[in-house]
Amino acid sequence: MTAQQMRSPTAEAVGIAAAKIAQLLPQTPLLEVEINGHTVWCKAECLQPIGAFKIRGAWHRLSDLSDAERAAGVVGVSSGNHAQGVAWAARRLGIAATIVMPVDAPQVKLEATRAMGAEVVLYDRPGGEDRDALAAKLCSERGATLVHAYADPWVIEGQGSAGLEIAAQLAARGFAPPTRVIAPCGGGGLTAGLALALPDAEIVPVEPEGWDDVRLSLASGEIQRVAADAPPTACDALQTPATWPINFAVLKQRCAYGLAVSPAEVRAAQRFAFSKLHLVVEPGGAAALAAVLAGMVPVDGRTAIILSGGNTDPESFAKVLQGTN
Amino acid sequence: MTAQQMRSPTAEAVGIAAAKIAQLLPQTPLLEVEINGHTVWCKAECLQPIGAFKIRGAWHRLSDLSDAERAAGVVGVSSGNHAQGVAWAARRLGIAATIVMPVDAPQVKLEATRAMGAEVVLYDRPGGEDRDALAAKLCSERGATLVHAYADPWVIEGQGSAGLEIAAQLAARGFAPPTRVIAPCGGGGLTAGLALALPDAEIVPVEPEGWDDVRLSLASGEIQRVAADAPPTACDALQTPATWPINFAVLKQRCAYGLAVSPAEVRAAQRFAFSKLHLVVEPGGAAALAAVLAGMVPVDGRTAIILSGGNTDPESFAKVLQGTN
Repeated sequence: MTAQQMRSPTAEAVGIAAAKIAQLLPQTPLLEVEINGHTVWCKAECLQPIGAFKIRGAWHRLSDLSDAERAAGVVGVSSGNHAQGVAWAARRLGIAATIVMPVDAPQVKLEATRAMGAEVVLYDRPGGEDRDALAAKLCSERGATLVHAYADPWVIEGQGSAGLEIAAQLAARGFAPPTRVIAPCGGGGLTAGLALALPDAEIVPVEPEGWDDVRLSLASGEIQRVAADAPPTACDALQTPATWPINFAVLKQRCAYGLAVSPAEVRAAQRFAFSKLHLVVEPGGAAALAAVLAGMVPVDGRTAIILSGGNTDPESFAKVLQGTN
Repeated sequence: MTAQQMRSPTAEAVGIAAAKIAQLLPQTPLLEVEINGHTVWCKAECLQPIGAFKIRGAWHRLSDLSDAERAAGVVGVSSGNHAQGVAWAARRLGIAATIVMPVDAPQVKLEATRAMGAEVVLYDRPGGEDRDALAAKLCSERGATLVHAYADPWVIEGQGSAGLEIAAQLAARGFAPPTRVIAPCGGGGLTAGLALALPDAEIVPVEPEGWDDVRLSLASGEIQRVAADAPPTACDALQTPATWPINFAVLKQRCAYGLAVSPAEVRAAQRFAFSKLHLVVEPGGAAALAAVLAGMVPVDGRTAIILSGGNTDPESFAKVLQGTN
């Protein structure tokens, strides 16, 4: 990690990121839905051009690179959504992108990343290969810039632009800013960004059971790692072993607690989004909605939920729709 | 049909309808997707609160009723999307709504209509029962106002507001208005509304094979009816026996031709919307996209497609995702 990356993310730069992103991408809709008698606002980030919010941080990061940095290319690490964000931004800016992805990433994510012109380097996630070490090696060999999926100030700021959009969209409809935002959490890039964007809102990160290192970190006050024998999860987008200090510095200030949802709760949320919102939401993208539907967190008319991504295989989604649990 | 309903729809009133709807409903997104090397703009009406564009015409119609008309209630006829539009608007305005629906309407549509407080009266569509006669009888008995699903000037004008939104959304991104809009077509309410909204655009109605009465009407210059032995279709929203003079008066002036799509082409379009747009689109809602994907109509960077609805059963959608044709 370079010195430049170690600067802290700022609320001011979230605003700069939001302005850059507004020039490029239309706002994703903020959809109204009734849950337990209350209106809840769902930010449909699955409708981004790459099907996930990750396009925000990647664009803010890559568009701020110097000409020399652009010429040397970028390296990203991702199970697929950050991969597509980096690939999308790189193609648009004419930057060579290499993405380190796990061999067990969803096929749709691997294909979409390659289709956008990025080089994909696979690593053995099930076998425990260290993806960060592999990415560092590639950067060192090529002089390329690492674009970390969450431990990067630009990436955090870019993701935070979703929070400013929520507040602006509520204001346009005559409502006050959200008092609570519930978000799927992998490494904590989105969660930290939302915390910077919305200083007066409670920010609640939600992780899959067994991958709830941020929840445990918040409870203990120190960064915890996922257990080596963590169960498999369909929430590939949230399958991160630990948050990083740059993220945790924000989270521990702003998040009172984290939540963990079960596979069945995630599937129920995907079905709810299908029938009530007509959206395709991937397992990890549905984690925050799952927590709300399971009654884990109070909601009122000023609660927002992030539906963070929709990149899922048709076969997997069909099984979710046919399931009954 | 009352004398009031027989006035012609006007372009000016499409603008009035659009202004009323803008106060109530946020714009549905206009999503960019690449087809055959061109950017095509998809208007995601499946993201309306009722999952279909029908909320537009129903709102324009019901909100223009007099106090006396409101007190006497409304009667609608629909396989489900117009039903939900009328029920939604009626609940919001405190009007009693009765909807005549076919016994074989999708379960999700029946349930959603009842859940919004409307009384549902079933008719035997497979047995050939005349739904218009049944609705007229109910109106006569109750003194209620008929809100026809398409043969109504307010309904046509309301649906047309989608066309004005498309033009405004393109303008906001620096683009000229669309030169061609391709839309699913049942009775021709949406198509006629779009034609009024966008006088300089080519408007192309798309129907399911065997239910292509508008296509045949345009070809012959006179209103044609669907054959008595028309095949079953998954596109329940487009299953109308014939267009009406109020619609055809606009269509024959503005639509050079209509198109018909096969069941397999519709399913392919639903799968495309799933994977590329992360949207749940019902069969009838995917008809226009199906025609474009099948190469039936030329596209360029100024072509818009209406994705008109997303109300489909999970079991049916799962089968579409698992299909290979």
